[in-house]
Amino acid sequence: MHEEKHLKNSDFITDAVIGLSDGLTVPFALAAGLSAAVNSNAIIVTTGIAEIVAGSIAMGLGGYLAGKTEIEHYESELKREFEEVELLPEKEKEEVREIFADYSLSESSQTLIVEELAKDKVKWVGFMMKFELGLEKPDINRARNSALTIGIAYILGGLIPLLGYIFTNTPTEGLYSSTTLTIICLFVFGYFKSKVTGQPVIKGALKVTFIGAIAAAAAFFVAQLFS
Amino acid sequence: MHEEKHLKNSDFITDAVIGLSDGLTVPFALAAGLSAAVNSNAIIVTTGIAEIVAGSIAMGLGGYLAGKTEIEHYESELKREFEEVELLPEKEKEEVREIFADYSLSESSQTLIVEELAKDKVKWVGFMMKFELGLEKPDINRARNSALTIGIAYILGGLIPLLGYIFTNTPTEGLYSSTTLTIICLFVFGYFKSKVTGQPVIKGALKVTFIGAIAAAAAFFVAQLFS
Repeated sequence: MHEEKHLKNSDFITDAVIGLSDGLTVPFALAAGLSAAVNSNAIIVTTGIAEIVAGSIAMGLGGYLAGKTEIEHYESELKREFEEVELLPEKEKEEVREIFADYSLSESSQTLIVEELAKDKVKWVGFMMKFELGLEKPDINRARNSALTIGIAYILGGLIPLLGYIFTNTPTEGLYSSTTLTIICLFVFGYFKSKVTGQPVIKGALKVTFIGAIAAAAAFFVAQLFS
Repeated sequence: MHEEKHLKNSDFITDAVIGLSDGLTVPFALAAGLSAAVNSNAIIVTTGIAEIVAGSIAMGLGGYLAGKTEIEHYESELKREFEEVELLPEKEKEEVREIFADYSLSESSQTLIVEELAKDKVKWVGFMMKFELGLEKPDINRARNSALTIGIAYILGGLIPLLGYIFTNTPTEGLYSSTTLTIICLFVFGYFKSKVTGQPVIKGALKVTFIGAIAAAAAFFVAQLFS
């Protein structure tokens, strides 16, 4: 029980950090782009909020529905494997043999494994799901919680770059404060994102910051071109 | 060779359809939101283009760097497994036994498998990578091509909702044409997205359309509130 609790907390932190660092990127870049094209901080803030709403729904709802689709896919494959084990046991046994032949196991070992595995159909199907198809049973609650956490964190992350435009009077001033604030936050959340996803932390933090900076610079120059 | 070619084309189509259908969603919703807040189609189009630039870079560059990170992760795990097999062979053998104990294989079979597997260290490590850690060797070209295709498709998909504002005179007219055009495209690309990712096609098409419509409606009402 304790371990499970621990894992759930860690999932929550991972999702929150991913949502925060991703949420910073696009609203930051969009606001930077707009600062080259309009002369009102109010329009930039309203646009930023519209993007945050659109992005968080696309990501949150999209993630939730993708999770449901994954479960349906798992269940239809599970049903098919049970049918195959029932109707074509020799074909399925051959597939188990092939998996082990790839690892140079002798034919006698292959036969031994296959015959022992075939004694328990539930275990056999479980084995085929994981080792033939590479599918693990997805957790619907996990998919829903994950989508919700990432979506909410995206909203919070997205509000940070907008602060620069809320507390200044012109788009240019807004751009300077938003960029300073967001670059710092991108680095910090990039650091934690790398930590929780098990990557080298400084390199990971620099990558996240780099993506945000490039996206913002590109949006700025393209918006300037089109305005 | 022929089969590989076939697979590569299919990856390309999958990525292109994913990028197109995702690219439609956020720019569509953002433009719909802005139509409630500003009275100039030019601002909506410029903003939409800035979002497309920001989003495609965040997604394309983000996807590419994530692909590179995945490869580094795979290689550091591979190195660690080789070290463990060298330095702690008994511990690794025990891990192989545990994998098969989970599928109710007898102890004598577990021992037989483990001893045969241990004869070839490269195969043994390959087995541990796949069956203990669930890691497959990632393909860097695939990651780069995939990021590029999704990024470019996102740009093309994102331009579709903007057409409605380019060829009309007021944000309200733009909203009507953009919504009509985008809803049709979301359904069509959602259909193909479901087809190439192996999901039920009509249900999948409706999901993609639904996410876009909800995101656009929410962005519209929130932007109206803040403007």
